[in-house]
Amino acid sequence: MPFDPASLSYDARGLIPAIAQDAGTGEVLMMAWMNAEAVARTLETGRVTYWSRSRQAFWIKGETSGHVQTLVEFRVDCDRDCLLLKVEQIGPACHTNRRSCFYTLVEDGAERVTMAPEVG
Amino acid sequence: MPFDPASLSYDARGLIPAIAQDAGTGEVLMMAWMNAEAVARTLETGRVTYWSRSRQAFWIKGETSGHVQTLVEFRVDCDRDCLLLKVEQIGPACHTNRRSCFYTLVEDGAERVTMAPEVG
Repeated sequence: MPFDPASLSYDARGLIPAIAQDAGTGEVLMMAWMNAEAVARTLETGRVTYWSRSRQAFWIKGETSGHVQTLVEFRVDCDRDCLLLKVEQIGPACHTNRRSCFYTLVEDGAERVTMAPEVG
Repeated sequence: MPFDPASLSYDARGLIPAIAQDAGTGEVLMMAWMNAEAVARTLETGRVTYWSRSRQAFWIKGETSGHVQTLVEFRVDCDRDCLLLKVEQIGPACHTNRRSCFYTLVEDGAERVTMAPEVG
């Protein structure tokens, strides 16, 4: 079946959540949002491109930071309202300079940071 | 730092996306939504509990299907607006009886189902 980005189920803002997972290690790196055009651009270019809700602009991951995400695999879920992207991630995925955005563990009623920012 | 479910960043509906990842294999199984009370119940009981948007009710994963999700690790992202749950998943996570909801691959402009429903 041909894939049409318009066939996905977007929310009221026209967005769909996209989970980025390290294609090699399986680590979940981040979750961000795409609109239909970001989906199309990601598939066309192989450079993962989100829609920045704060900037209201396309966000080619790594364009300013150099922390590029290259698309390895693109998956759609059963309800067509969530994406799973397997990626090759250069450097940290998180704006805090950590490899993953999910660096805060909740355990025994408390929060604990389990990853350090990368240096350099 | 003590963890307070109210400290998370919920959307206009009071919901936060939660990614469920197989604690053993790293496979991403599904994404669903929680409200603050579902977060609290999940942490208290160790049984992953979502908020069903369609039913507008708590959804204790596996309560009717037997496909229980047991919480292994609970993580919050940098913006506190997405959760990553590492889980032990009994049977399929997807309502289509597949292990993961992300069984549709998009490749070369076409969709292809890459996982079969589990039998029995």
